[in-house]
Amino acid sequence: MSNSRKGVKLFYDVISPYSWLAFEVLCRYRNVWNIDLTLKPAYLTGVIYGSGNQPAGANPSKLMYMVSDLKLTSEYFGVPMFRPSSISEKDSLNAMRFVTAIAEKGKDGDTLERVSRELWKRKWRTQQDITQPASLTDAGLKAGLSANEVEEILTLSKSQPIKDKLKSVTEEALEYRVSVYLYPLSFPLKCLCGKNIIKHPYTIFFPFLQCFGFPFIVCNVNGKAKVFFGSDRFELMAYFFGEKWVGPQPDKPTVQM
Amino acid sequence: MSNSRKGVKLFYDVISPYSWLAFEVLCRYRNVWNIDLTLKPAYLTGVIYGSGNQPAGANPSKLMYMVSDLKLTSEYFGVPMFRPSSISEKDSLNAMRFVTAIAEKGKDGDTLERVSRELWKRKWRTQQDITQPASLTDAGLKAGLSANEVEEILTLSKSQPIKDKLKSVTEEALEYRVSVYLYPLSFPLKCLCGKNIIKHPYTIFFPFLQCFGFPFIVCNVNGKAKVFFGSDRFELMAYFFGEKWVGPQPDKPTVQM
Repeated sequence: MSNSRKGVKLFYDVISPYSWLAFEVLCRYRNVWNIDLTLKPAYLTGVIYGSGNQPAGANPSKLMYMVSDLKLTSEYFGVPMFRPSSISEKDSLNAMRFVTAIAEKGKDGDTLERVSRELWKRKWRTQQDITQPASLTDAGLKAGLSANEVEEILTLSKSQPIKDKLKSVTEEALEYRVSVYLYPLSFPLKCLCGKNIIKHPYTIFFPFLQCFGFPFIVCNVNGKAKVFFGSDRFELMAYFFGEKWVGPQPDKPTVQM
Repeated sequence: MSNSRKGVKLFYDVISPYSWLAFEVLCRYRNVWNIDLTLKPAYLTGVIYGSGNQPAGANPSKLMYMVSDLKLTSEYFGVPMFRPSSISEKDSLNAMRFVTAIAEKGKDGDTLERVSRELWKRKWRTQQDITQPASLTDAGLKAGLSANEVEEILTLSKSQPIKDKLKSVTEEALEYRVSVYLYPLSFPLKCLCGKNIIKHPYTIFFPFLQCFGFPFIVCNVNGKAKVFFGSDRFELMAYFFGEKWVGPQPDKPTVQM
């Protein structure tokens, strides 16, 4: 473990199963890699539409690949999950407002983690609702909150400041700009669709928007920043941090010499 | 290394940098994992449009993430590359017909590998053209073919049987059906966009299309099949095969106990 201070921000939504995998891995590696982990509950639907991305379920081949991939991945990550019977893209709005209210209420990080985990469990393990107040109450109680606390947080979650906060964290992800080294020295940067995005005669480091889905993970170490999308970049994250990766369960290494 | 016979089919296009990473890793692990590797040159544009996917470059945030990601990933994989000054989605049609002609000509696997690698190098390392006959000739010569052989293959690459072959391998990827375990027992499978795709009262194993981009990697072992998309699933592939993953360069392990 190196002594460098490493910052990690995890933008997530409980509707996203890959966010759950990233969440568990980062929680497990927090002390192993000495990372300062900040949980950033946000709204996936806002990011998908805000970035002009295609929702995962809009493409049947991609959806079927995801179903098949999640079966093996969740087993390998030690986070049992099963595809829910239905997924609506707006399913998580109430849940993420509830989680945002917990974060804003200044509850300790453990509570935020436990409530997020309970909501993921409901949606992706036990096939339970996460849209209704009774469902959010149940998740809050299971996470160790008192009945009074849950009621207070439920009320708070419907307030304008909390709605605005969820929106602003979602925008923070969408508007996160990270420098990209553009090569070669002289170019018209043409994207695959043939449009000229930028024309510049010199090598430049330029901050670009890079968020189009969750989990979106912003890493900082020694003045360098790098973003990672998805739950399949931890090996690369370890390389970026100068740390070791031994698989998704550091207490049960699966990746070996 | 286990003794099971493992089959791996790699569907790739030289326009795809992540296909290059997958290609190099699979070539390196071929003997380490005892895999029977089959190279399947195909046409990425056909797969993107055939599956209704969004081209990577159509989304500016996704494109910038890819540029940033490739810088770190190619360094970590030991496959130096730099984003080309321009990428047109049709850039690889002549090149992939040329590669298909080599595969069909019955050249040994080494030649197919070397020519594919030379084309990737031109596009993604030295910023050279891969659309013109002179460029393909140069790649063929660098890969060890004689001038006569290159000329013969160039002519063959423009023939109808080769055009049809490239189309049929691309369709083979698109139409590759792999069984997916659908859970729970009773459901309307709703995708994120809200459409009902299928309704069935029982648990079913059903073969579904799962290809929407390259690299598309079909793995078989002990009668089980699994597909993997991208160059970030090798750790999971090792788990599926019951093999060990020590990072993208098995001769220089980066992933350790």
